[in-house]
Amino acid sequence: MEPLVDTFISALYKLSSNLEENLVPTFKAETLRKLSEEIFMAYGATAEEAKLVSDFLVKANLCGHDSHGVIRIIQYVKAIEDGVLKPGVKIDVVRETSSSALLKGNWGFGQVVAKRAMELAIEKAKKNSVSVVCAFDVYHIGRLADYTRLAAERNMIGIAMVNSTPFVAPFGGRERLISTAPVSYAFPTGKENLFVLDIATSVCAEGKVRVSLHKGEKLPEGYIIDKEGKPSTNPADLYDGGAILPLGGDLVGYKGFGLGLVVEVMAGILSTAGCAFEIDKKGNGVFFEAINIEDFMSIDEFKNRMDALIRRIKSSKLRPGFKEILLPGEPEIRTEIKRKKEGIYVPERTWEEIVRIANKKGVDVSGITDE
Amino acid sequence: MEPLVDTFISALYKLSSNLEENLVPTFKAETLRKLSEEIFMAYGATAEEAKLVSDFLVKANLCGHDSHGVIRIIQYVKAIEDGVLKPGVKIDVVRETSSSALLKGNWGFGQVVAKRAMELAIEKAKKNSVSVVCAFDVYHIGRLADYTRLAAERNMIGIAMVNSTPFVAPFGGRERLISTAPVSYAFPTGKENLFVLDIATSVCAEGKVRVSLHKGEKLPEGYIIDKEGKPSTNPADLYDGGAILPLGGDLVGYKGFGLGLVVEVMAGILSTAGCAFEIDKKGNGVFFEAINIEDFMSIDEFKNRMDALIRRIKSSKLRPGFKEILLPGEPEIRTEIKRKKEGIYVPERTWEEIVRIANKKGVDVSGITDE
Repeated sequence: MEPLVDTFISALYKLSSNLEENLVPTFKAETLRKLSEEIFMAYGATAEEAKLVSDFLVKANLCGHDSHGVIRIIQYVKAIEDGVLKPGVKIDVVRETSSSALLKGNWGFGQVVAKRAMELAIEKAKKNSVSVVCAFDVYHIGRLADYTRLAAERNMIGIAMVNSTPFVAPFGGRERLISTAPVSYAFPTGKENLFVLDIATSVCAEGKVRVSLHKGEKLPEGYIIDKEGKPSTNPADLYDGGAILPLGGDLVGYKGFGLGLVVEVMAGILSTAGCAFEIDKKGNGVFFEAINIEDFMSIDEFKNRMDALIRRIKSSKLRPGFKEILLPGEPEIRTEIKRKKEGIYVPERTWEEIVRIANKKGVDVSGITDE
Repeated sequence: MEPLVDTFISALYKLSSNLEENLVPTFKAETLRKLSEEIFMAYGATAEEAKLVSDFLVKANLCGHDSHGVIRIIQYVKAIEDGVLKPGVKIDVVRETSSSALLKGNWGFGQVVAKRAMELAIEKAKKNSVSVVCAFDVYHIGRLADYTRLAAERNMIGIAMVNSTPFVAPFGGRERLISTAPVSYAFPTGKENLFVLDIATSVCAEGKVRVSLHKGEKLPEGYIIDKEGKPSTNPADLYDGGAILPLGGDLVGYKGFGLGLVVEVMAGILSTAGCAFEIDKKGNGVFFEAINIEDFMSIDEFKNRMDALIRRIKSSKLRPGFKEILLPGEPEIRTEIKRKKEGIYVPERTWEEIVRIANKKGVDVSGITDE
């Protein structure tokens, strides 16, 4: 996980200091996308797999989630070399009805399995109003928003939950037994931006703690506890037997705890993938759902009502210290516009590692320069 | 809303002081249920309506949620007298597919519409794996847990969301534009207690603030803001133009804000019932879903996995100050066992008002005594 942190830190330093600007290579999205594709294909991915995974990684960089961006090339290639991630495998449909399916990913690229799962959900919901597709034996699927968005772009409601390894303590407990358990909901809109919520049900994602650790900064109060279960602002305590608190923290953490358990059940049990607390837990358990809006109202009416809701919320009088109300998905849209223009920063150590991986399989990087 | 608070306060005083024990009338659940039925029938409810509503109200008292208990008789009877709540009306099915339905409640008892909605969802999910039933023009439906539990008792996953009038500010805003937007999930279990989560997506429910107000106590920090948008611990500030904060508070309130908006969309827009911010918003917008577990795995396997999850979570090492980990639904189960034995406390002012309402229509309360 180390290089991931370096990405964060470098990106943050970059943004906070013009002096460092020249130290951080900047690339066009298309350049990174093409290189990523070539690397994955050199390591055994099909052209289709390589394209999809690269699209999603670079998209994550574009919208500001560098932890889910091209830095993951390093992790995925290692997983391929270790035999953990298996390019080119077939996805099995283990169970299926007209409104549901259970997919076995066979440890292929998580993005491939997840996109297939959401497309299947959309297809089934189109015919049958609502559908659920779960998946197990799935490698890292990346950002949930990428999948719920697919449904919203097809005039559906998209819902996603995944679980993974444990980082979060139960409310009142001090052991890590629940994953950060993210959920995502996406809704189509008319003239307003797509509504896309994608959040962990814990106070924060693990990456946030790791960034603070490597920057030598303290965490805000209320994020983590140490191994004794005492509140801590020292990020190192998480990696010394501590845990992240569920959303709601000391005040009302039983709420985030409950939501985290819901995700463990939907994405870990219903999918058969297993819960975070299980010793041999790996990969992502996947729960996807699509709802066909047109079985409830015309899509135009839905979109008009969404626009009215968004406009009223955004027009709210503000609290001191706030400049505007940002809807879920808005920060990402703004970063994407910026980065499409200015390029994507890749920290030097990350870039060097990507080049090393490329060279190892003879992928030509000579023509790629800092732009 | 005043009597509701008095209930809370009296109940709290009762529990905290043996000296006051004799001041608070205590009744057997069956006594209250029967009286409630007779009152509702006297005010025009059918026998079936009166039984269902009374069952749910007394059940709420039994499991410790007195704000949703027999105190509501007063509110509902007033709503009947005002023509807002209409006993005996038919529920219309406005739209329907094999996996979905949209119900028009015609302002009948919310409990009747909601139970019908969840039963329809269960029936459809049984045949078609998953279903969504929404409802509009619905009076107060009470606790969501009562409906998701119905699904879990039928070996299904039950999901519920409702919206109502606004009490919560957007993250960064200081206007009340979102309802407390509760969500509920229920899962069947084997030997362990049913898993039933039922929480507001705001830091707290409005009733919590009102109790503090009437007890003359300060709220914990992080619950509300005043009309200027500044943090406040004075509950009176909520009723003077303030707002409740979304779950996550100042730290990560954009999460609870996002979840609250999800509920506004699912329960307010998809149901056509309208969003909390709308000036003429009244009643509950309803979103219910049922998922048939057996289309994903055998129900025995699901229950075994649920039991294993619950046991591991409950066995977690504890934080200082905690005596055990309580799963969603557990506090209610414990209170129900206690109150079935010891009876239900009804504050004197509430009881007097119920007696007045009963007498007005000639319902005989002479045989009912404090037990």
